[in-house]
Amino acid sequence: MIRPNKYYSELKDSYLFYNIAQKTKAYVEQHPGTKLLRMGIGDVSLPLCDAVIRALHEAVDDQASKSSFHGYMPECGASFLREKIAEHYEKRGVSLSADEVFVSSGASDELGDILDLFERSSSALVIEPAYPAYVDANVMAGRKIVHLSSSEENNFLPEPGEDIKADLLYICSPNNPTGAVFSREQLQAWVDFANENGSVILFDAAYEAFIEDETLPHSIFELDGAKTCAIEICSLSKTAGFTGTRLGYTVIPKALKRNGMNLNEMWIRNRTTKTNGVSYIIQKGGAAVFTEEGQRQIHENIQIYKRNAKILMKALDQIGIWYCGGKNAPYIWMRCPKGMKSWEFFDYLLHKIQVVGTPGEGFGAAGEGYFRFSTFGSPEDTKEAAERIVTLFSK
Amino acid sequence: MIRPNKYYSELKDSYLFYNIAQKTKAYVEQHPGTKLLRMGIGDVSLPLCDAVIRALHEAVDDQASKSSFHGYMPECGASFLREKIAEHYEKRGVSLSADEVFVSSGASDELGDILDLFERSSSALVIEPAYPAYVDANVMAGRKIVHLSSSEENNFLPEPGEDIKADLLYICSPNNPTGAVFSREQLQAWVDFANENGSVILFDAAYEAFIEDETLPHSIFELDGAKTCAIEICSLSKTAGFTGTRLGYTVIPKALKRNGMNLNEMWIRNRTTKTNGVSYIIQKGGAAVFTEEGQRQIHENIQIYKRNAKILMKALDQIGIWYCGGKNAPYIWMRCPKGMKSWEFFDYLLHKIQVVGTPGEGFGAAGEGYFRFSTFGSPEDTKEAAERIVTLFSK
Repeated sequence: MIRPNKYYSELKDSYLFYNIAQKTKAYVEQHPGTKLLRMGIGDVSLPLCDAVIRALHEAVDDQASKSSFHGYMPECGASFLREKIAEHYEKRGVSLSADEVFVSSGASDELGDILDLFERSSSALVIEPAYPAYVDANVMAGRKIVHLSSSEENNFLPEPGEDIKADLLYICSPNNPTGAVFSREQLQAWVDFANENGSVILFDAAYEAFIEDETLPHSIFELDGAKTCAIEICSLSKTAGFTGTRLGYTVIPKALKRNGMNLNEMWIRNRTTKTNGVSYIIQKGGAAVFTEEGQRQIHENIQIYKRNAKILMKALDQIGIWYCGGKNAPYIWMRCPKGMKSWEFFDYLLHKIQVVGTPGEGFGAAGEGYFRFSTFGSPEDTKEAAERIVTLFSK
Repeated sequence: MIRPNKYYSELKDSYLFYNIAQKTKAYVEQHPGTKLLRMGIGDVSLPLCDAVIRALHEAVDDQASKSSFHGYMPECGASFLREKIAEHYEKRGVSLSADEVFVSSGASDELGDILDLFERSSSALVIEPAYPAYVDANVMAGRKIVHLSSSEENNFLPEPGEDIKADLLYICSPNNPTGAVFSREQLQAWVDFANENGSVILFDAAYEAFIEDETLPHSIFELDGAKTCAIEICSLSKTAGFTGTRLGYTVIPKALKRNGMNLNEMWIRNRTTKTNGVSYIIQKGGAAVFTEEGQRQIHENIQIYKRNAKILMKALDQIGIWYCGGKNAPYIWMRCPKGMKSWEFFDYLLHKIQVVGTPGEGFGAAGEGYFRFSTFGSPEDTKEAAERIVTLFSK
């Protein structure tokens, strides 16, 4: 009798965004015709930019004709895209060779897949509140999880300490859900800690394009010594609106070795065995993001989301609610008013003003009492939600 | 100090198709201007059909406008595609609900990912010669591999036997590389064996569209009892030319349970944790394959590959070389002439007539002395290769 993976039974019953969807659905069924303002899930609302659309159409045309048709793509990514991404890093002073860049179907897929590189006996540090899949993907592998709580006291940016014993360190900066961003000095401390302890940092850089403060690092490889201790996982989902189009990339430096094994070479072996690469069409669309025109257009879109953030921040300022994020990140992390718990506040907002957000508790126990707003909605909805919030709390 | 996955060091140094590429590249560098006929790797040469191209363009246009834009897709696949695939099964008399069908980025990705459902202590049966990734993906997980050799004596279609002890059973029919196809009776024996032993069959149906003999099963779910013991992994790569466009689907029946755990529910949990679904654009392209127009067009393309197979089969008949496959599968599996070993024959064909095939030994020890031709090349190249082969062996 084959045994299914027993660790699946250790997972919590269901998933944060699924619960939100179910509660919202039930409310809509009970209140037909209500206009709900969805500021919960971090999904983009703006379409793909023109440069990407044009590249996608051209790539589809390539697939229509024998002379330009592309069959199997290189498993680790097309050269045309890997080179463009390496050049993009170069502009920020990070020198990478194209074969240190791996094309993926997105950060979500990669965050799960990459764990195959490490022994299951290794432990994983998750700084909470955190994206719930960090924990779940490691539960599925039976890995020991070390929870490190962040809080208002440390601006949700905890420091490494001698008491922390973990092999794999998840760091997400700009952070989902808190919007907090590690400074160069703070991130350097984690890099040094990882190098001293032989740990590996999984650096989730999905939101780097939202950083406006020029002193903050976009990539962990801007820090000294990161190439011997970090893997950086990136995504075009929020940067360029690819949530439903799917493309990401991962940097594994050739200098990253543990126990005599080279992780870059191991990942090549993993990809050549377990994938046949990412769609030619989508990779062509992704390459357009890294052109001058593409960069200009995606930044125009990002500015629209940033204006959403300003509108929400202004509303919270007006009614005197504590929050962080919003400035260098697409999320605003607020303290629930009147000492409410986060699911309590979720229900309160849904029923009182039909605004949907994300309860902080869904990101781990350290998120209890907080609430996340996404700034990826439409400007109209965001403005209306801000007005409803101000009215509700000004009463 | 984190420990990398130690099993990677147990993998063989490099990969079959990589070796072929290296040998071929070296030959071309030494003989510039040579016309090489590539019948090795199973990559398609015909472009995507019109119905798919049109659907892809429409989907790209959807992503260009706010009102039709698609963000995150359902992790297990878009309803529009899952329903079309379930209807496609219905036509063959297999009744599935849409939520037993999971959309994937392709069979190659899925064959690796799906292993997460099972304990690493479970063993895997690989019927050899076999697609090398079956073995490698399980070596990476530290799984015990049970090798079952097939041979000319059993037409490369071995029967289950009481001496076989394995939890996970890989069955690929039509087979890569031998082109052999299990009859209903033969496949029923494996289904019964799996149900009796509590094993799970991973049925690789990537080549089912090439079956022309109407008595042969396209899907394992055509057999009684398969829903309690099998997962079927399918791909549009060969069916519809999606090798570089990437789309596949996997069927996990709701009735498939082991040790009190439901594998369909486990896979939902896996997908919702570890992916954000497959590109909207590509799923729309895939849905066009299952329309009446799409089916007609892909079958026209398949007929072109089948004519290639006939040309090669005729050539081998003419010079009296034993082979199987070609009729219900896109591969022809031939015995190397003059007692040559398979890599020896690879070098011989490359150097004598500049034809590239795949050495049988690359599919496991049971493939030694055999050689695989792919029929996915262009008709012109296939014809020329057949002529060169006939000339070489008629001397």
